[in-house]
Amino acid sequence: MGSTYGQLYRFTVFGESHSPGIGVTIEGLPAGFRPDREALRAFLKRRAPGRNEYSSARREADEPLFEEGLDADGRTTGAPLTVLIRNTDIRPADYEAFRTVPRPGHADYPAYVKTGRIPSGGGKWSGRMTAPICIAGGLARQLLAAEGIRIEARIESIAGLHDPDPFTESTEDKVFPVSSPDPLTAKRFQDKILAAKAAGDSVGGTVECRITGLPAGLGDHPFDGLENRIAAAVFGIPAVKGIEFGDGFALSALRGSQANDAYRPENGRIVTESNHCGGILGGMSDGMPLLFRAA
Amino acid sequence: MGSTYGQLYRFTVFGESHSPGIGVTIEGLPAGFRPDREALRAFLKRRAPGRNEYSSARREADEPLFEEGLDADGRTTGAPLTVLIRNTDIRPADYEAFRTVPRPGHADYPAYVKTGRIPSGGGKWSGRMTAPICIAGGLARQLLAAEGIRIEARIESIAGLHDPDPFTESTEDKVFPVSSPDPLTAKRFQDKILAAKAAGDSVGGTVECRITGLPAGLGDHPFDGLENRIAAAVFGIPAVKGIEFGDGFALSALRGSQANDAYRPENGRIVTESNHCGGILGGMSDGMPLLFRAA
Amino acid sequence: MGSTYGQLYRFTVFGESHSPGIGVTIEGLPAGFRPDREALRAFLKRRAPGRNEYSSARREADEPLFEEGLDADGRTTGAPLTVLIRNTDIRPADYEAFRTVPRPGHADYPAYVKTGRIPSGGGKWSGRMTAPICIAGGLARQLLAAEGIRIEARIESIAGLHDPDPFTESTEDKVFPVSSPDPLTAKRFQDKILAAKAAGDSVGGTVECRITGLPAGLGDHPFDGLENRIAAAVFGIPAVKGIEFGDGFALSALRGSQANDAYRPENGRIVTESNHCGGILGGMSDGMPLLFRAA
Amino acid sequence: MGSTYGQLYRFTVFGESHSPGIGVTIEGLPAGFRPDREALRAFLKRRAPGRNEYSSARREADEPLFEEGLDADGRTTGAPLTVLIRNTDIRPADYEAFRTVPRPGHADYPAYVKTGRIPSGGGKWSGRMTAPICIAGGLARQLLAAEGIRIEARIESIAGLHDPDPFTESTEDKVFPVSSPDPLTAKRFQDKILAAKAAGDSVGGTVECRITGLPAGLGDHPFDGLENRIAAAVFGIPAVKGIEFGDGFALSALRGSQANDAYRPENGRIVTESNHCGGILGGMSDGMPLLFRAA
Repeated sequence: MGSTYGQLYRFTVFGESHSPGIGVTIEGLPAGFRPDREALRAFLKRRAPGRNEYSSARREADEPLFEEGLDADGRTTGAPLTVLIRNTDIRPADYEAFRTVPRPGHADYPAYVKTGRIPSGGGKWSGRMTAPICIAGGLARQLLAAEGIRIEARIESIAGLHDPDPFTESTEDKVFPVSSPDPLTAKRFQDKILAAKAAGDSVGGTVECRITGLPAGLGDHPFDGLENRIAAAVFGIPAVKGIEFGDGFALSALRGSQANDAYRPENGRIVTESNHCGGILGGMSDGMPLLFRAA
Repeated sequence: MGSTYGQLYRFTVFGESHSPGIGVTIEGLPAGFRPDREALRAFLKRRAPGRNEYSSARREADEPLFEEGLDADGRTTGAPLTVLIRNTDIRPADYEAFRTVPRPGHADYPAYVKTGRIPSGGGKWSGRMTAPICIAGGLARQLLAAEGIRIEARIESIAGLHDPDPFTESTEDKVFPVSSPDPLTAKRFQDKILAAKAAGDSVGGTVECRITGLPAGLGDHPFDGLENRIAAAVFGIPAVKGIEFGDGFALSALRGSQANDAYRPENGRIVTESNHCGGILGGMSDGMPLLFRAA
Repeated sequence: MGSTYGQLYRFTVFGESHSPGIGVTIEGLPAGFRPDREALRAFLKRRAPGRNEYSSARREADEPLFEEGLDADGRTTGAPLTVLIRNTDIRPADYEAFRTVPRPGHADYPAYVKTGRIPSGGGKWSGRMTAPICIAGGLARQLLAAEGIRIEARIESIAGLHDPDPFTESTEDKVFPVSSPDPLTAKRFQDKILAAKAAGDSVGGTVECRITGLPAGLGDHPFDGLENRIAAAVFGIPAVKGIEFGDGFALSALRGSQANDAYRPENGRIVTESNHCGGILGGMSDGMPLLFRAA
Repeated sequence: MGSTYGQLYRFTVFGESHSPGIGVTIEGLPAGFRPDREALRAFLKRRAPGRNEYSSARREADEPLFEEGLDADGRTTGAPLTVLIRNTDIRPADYEAFRTVPRPGHADYPAYVKTGRIPSGGGKWSGRMTAPICIAGGLARQLLAAEGIRIEARIESIAGLHDPDPFTESTEDKVFPVSSPDPLTAKRFQDKILAAKAAGDSVGGTVECRITGLPAGLGDHPFDGLENRIAAAVFGIPAVKGIEFGDGFALSALRGSQANDAYRPENGRIVTESNHCGGILGGMSDGMPLLFRAA
């Protein structure tokens, strides 16, 4: 049942790497919401492969088609919303060599054990399936923005090279070739990628995400806290092998007195001097920016 | 709804730091299973505070009482199982000073925003609530052991000091004062703790868990994979701020060719030369040991 | 996983006919709610066996013990609430004869197939397990009453003899010996029961439930509508074999023009002239009293 | 979240009366299953309107398009399956008159309260949405048939006229004009419908369903029993106002001794002399045919 995520806002992704299309059905959207299609397209471009020399070769337009759930005015009706993307660049021949030999580091082998075949092009385990997830996420992000909640992400490291700048400048609506607001850092990231590519290889990296504007008190410990829920979503992205909130693993080397964030009042509300905990205490938002990194 | 975890084996923890008792109700146990109470007690001792000078001061017997769900022969009936632990060491006065001032690094402040009060002794956010979780986990572990699946955990680092040995020796049924099979490492861990304690402080650490005997193909990508599920459970432990599978964050500094685990046949089955992925590919077990670390 | 019901207000019942006690763990109660114990006791008395000559012989005090989840002031803390009832009248010998022969019309035979044994005294299938369900329901009823939503039930027929009066008078807080506000009807109901009892037999009946004060628009068609949810709960009561909303089965003999309820404005809101649909249209409340009967 | 049903086999319906199409996404299908499209088409024809003079006027081809989830051989891959039906007969003008006035007996009014508009053509509350439910059900039925479980349904009454014959003859794969194997009964049913139609009206009825081949012991009392689950699904069909299992409401007029089904051995297994309980005891299948009627 792994293709579904969420409770009050719940979506199911469907389709595969080499099926006619991929898509998502979303339940829980309020009636009367008019998706901003232009903003959604810009959001999808940030993940789209094939757009430049730094990402993988596959080229897809990734045009989201709102099939069901909008009325004649382009507004949600209260019924589920189904959005499709046509797979226009299917070249099964590209993957033919892999049909009988499982690729190391891919899902091919356990997928074979589970389903009796090696999925064509990665099947539902393909990185391409992040596109419908981004549609569900991009629309949720539009709804949250209307509540003053802003979600931003950046590349924090590539091949062990970390962005030296803190995550302070808003990156919203910016599409970087290889995502850094600083041209020098962007150049270094690109060099890492091109060097690996020249060697017929790929590189790892970390992504950092920041959510601001959350009220305090969201999340239900122990198993429905923000960390539980966010981690359960983020591991849905293929190849993610770790997640940490706030200072994360670095906190494990510290003493409690160094890790705790002291409170102080500021403009009539409670803030913390530092944010080692990444805006989450006891599984709940504490009103500070929520910060996490995924490897 | 955060007090419940699981699907086919599902449990709800209840009680609080300063309530008469704490406990857990478990659904999904097969009928006719006879819990090994002695093994469960030994398992609970590994987490129990108050047993030695290295852990926090609270002393509790943590005797699990099987209240409902067993027949006269001590076997499950197919109905839910409820196990209680009496809170025998409640000294609310100890915590009195915290009733009106939220403790930094604790859930007090967001809990106050959420519920209108600062919970006594940490309420349901108390580390003590890991005891009923350990009961549910300890019984699941007994059921899995009967299927040849072994779950082990060790302290992998304390205050930045890492256990230099790989996690090869079985630690099952061993209760270490401060958990290392190597006396020298154990001594160093203890020194770290005592030094912090002498300074009126505490220390962080990482725990490593290894699961062997899993068949390949378990887990349903993208949102019901093993990483999603395990992370959603592990973040239920208070103060956990990060989790990584296999080489985790270290993989983000590598190239793909270094990170992928090559297959080879061994004794009629498929194994991998290395295990960078921690036994999970595409959210599914691949038949190698499942490895993760929590900060 | 059948022992759990509900989404935003969710409870798990545990215990069995012959276990030390029975109880319920409830999640989703708002913090700061003070259960009215006296009202809950009165509510439980309406279902309690052993109180008079018309119900079955078993005698239990059914005193609800609030074990966990209330603070020193008797208010919910936001953590789950666990309420127990001790089984004080366990006489396994009474049931001994049934241990090897399944009783007709009881769950014994399929329970044997499922669990490998015939459950003592009906096990978790015993009618006694409605007591913890009534605790969860009685507390929910108190919370809803504070929102102006009133839930009432009455015996509508016994052994085919129907209460000739419409369900207009409030029965709230009344405990009838055999539940009818009209002494003549009550007497006839009692005669039916005593006649069956004298013959060493029992009788069937129907219960009618009315919910007033619901706002229009609650429920999510097709599978999370009010009828779906209420039916899924009501079939949790042992021996219920049918449920109908509004005029129910009688509607199947009518034409559409006879079954539809015409709208008219009344005091600034929309009401219907009749209520054949039992206050539910398209799975949603329509603002009229919700009515259903269970056999 | 009402558009989703099921646990191990779970589906979400989407689309509306007047959207470009309607469809269903199904999770939980085993990999390697090849849907029998011809059998599915025949199954869908049994519910399709517009095929004869006895059903409503709307005409749709209802051709199920398998969009995603099948491989080149027409077999499931283990990923979710999405099946679409194009809405080819949308004539919003037909419904124009209803846009501002809620139709009695329809979901229009509570839908307006809930979503702020009267849904065009009934929106997601339209009877047309039973088509994707039938796709999910028709495929489940094919899977169950392979396990020896047969699901059949018939019209049991129309406008109060009951089919005098018991439900003994298999109706599988038969498509009746107005569904009765007996020509005389079929004629009487048709007369009832035509008489109402001539008066510009419609009629109610009851449908009976029989499931054979179920092993004993399926279902988990109290809230995940067969009655709970089936009722929760059946009330997803618009206009259903009641459901009863076995003898249902008729049982409420009987004594226990008349209602209980006596056991006897037959050909090495346990059967019951009668089947008043409709094949369900304690929420579990008892091995006899499961029988229910919906109004």
